[in-house]
Amino acid sequence: MTATGILYGVGIGPGDPDLITRKAARLIESAAIIAYPTLAGAASFARSIVAGLIGPGTCEIVIDLPMLTEREPAQAAYDAGAARIAAELTAGRDVVVLCEGDPLFYGSFMYLHARLAGRFRVEVVPGVTSITACAARAGLPLAARNQAVTVVPGPLPDDVLRQHIRSADALVLMKVGRHLGRVRALLEAEGLADRAVYVARATLDGEECLPLRAAPEAAPYFSMILVPKEADPWL
Amino acid sequence: MTATGILYGVGIGPGDPDLITRKAARLIESAAIIAYPTLAGAASFARSIVAGLIGPGTCEIVIDLPMLTEREPAQAAYDAGAARIAAELTAGRDVVVLCEGDPLFYGSFMYLHARLAGRFRVEVVPGVTSITACAARAGLPLAARNQAVTVVPGPLPDDVLRQHIRSADALVLMKVGRHLGRVRALLEAEGLADRAVYVARATLDGEECLPLRAAPEAAPYFSMILVPKEADPWL
Repeated sequence: MTATGILYGVGIGPGDPDLITRKAARLIESAAIIAYPTLAGAASFARSIVAGLIGPGTCEIVIDLPMLTEREPAQAAYDAGAARIAAELTAGRDVVVLCEGDPLFYGSFMYLHARLAGRFRVEVVPGVTSITACAARAGLPLAARNQAVTVVPGPLPDDVLRQHIRSADALVLMKVGRHLGRVRALLEAEGLADRAVYVARATLDGEECLPLRAAPEAAPYFSMILVPKEADPWL
Repeated sequence: MTATGILYGVGIGPGDPDLITRKAARLIESAAIIAYPTLAGAASFARSIVAGLIGPGTCEIVIDLPMLTEREPAQAAYDAGAARIAAELTAGRDVVVLCEGDPLFYGSFMYLHARLAGRFRVEVVPGVTSITACAARAGLPLAARNQAVTVVPGPLPDDVLRQHIRSADALVLMKVGRHLGRVRALLEAEGLADRAVYVARATLDGEECLPLRAAPEAAPYFSMILVPKEADPWL
């Protein structure tokens, strides 16, 4: 009887291959089987980050997701991907799943985790998130001492965004993309636009760090707005 | 005339040396001068994480902080540390500052950043935070899709904690330590204790991941409580 393989959910950071952890790099370099999602047949961003680490004989399981506005087709794609991964694990082979940023922080890995963690041994390797990468590139302390930080996805409706903006200490607005105009208007209305910084494609080619007021009208999907609290009086 | 050196604020992750990024490892291995804080003369946790990477000839600037309950002595320690670092930078030598977790996310690096960023070139290397490390060790998705996440320091007073607990989606309580009893009582009162997970010393020797109700009475400084939102219906 063969022991089952281990499912590794491996965070590979925000985009710069140098921001991969040593553990993630070693796991990917020695992997016989890797798996990663692609979106509607496009090239995989996750795979592009680690392309230099993938050995020539590595087997690649591609989980091709439809555009994620509808629930059932995405569910079916994760079901099919999980089934292929489960077959490898059952045969005693480890599978390394590539996850942009961190696997359990807004990562698609959680859909595989939900389908496989009950049946197989899972090890999650945390990664550098886009949030601290954006703060690093902007040179902007996110939170000090006893400040709270709230991370809010931009696609939420206006009233929910407004509530989070009002109750937050330091604030990070993620996945801004096509919601930039709406998010900017909400921050203006709450008197926070002056302190807000726009960061797009942190650590990647075409990176931009700008005061929010100078941000372009059209933001890429990988864009974020940081709104630090007032300067810490201890600084 | 000599060009001034670069100040590197380098995130070294939550504790496991394998969770250092490749960039941080390379900078530390090749550093002629490193700097790090110690607390009241104790051994430096940051230095212990990277001990295996520090070359024999490396010069070490130790910033010895008094216990951080009083403001002026800590300010004076950062002033003195910043002055020693500034002298090296002025002489054209780079300085690599070691930062547990991420430099700009509850990191003491921001005190050096505030003192030196106006005068010298600074490069911040983001690191894996203890938050995603705890989620990884607990096998617990922190946030999915359009959920918000609020990170709240445990030392805040009860009324401020209660407000954040009530307005948060997913919730992370950091720096729990001796505040564990108080934080637990607040979560009980809000009906959240059943979902809460206690994680201490994530990725380090003596790591613990337990349901909050099973957590010990006395928690170490490096402890955290994760309160995920209800399971995402997409999972």
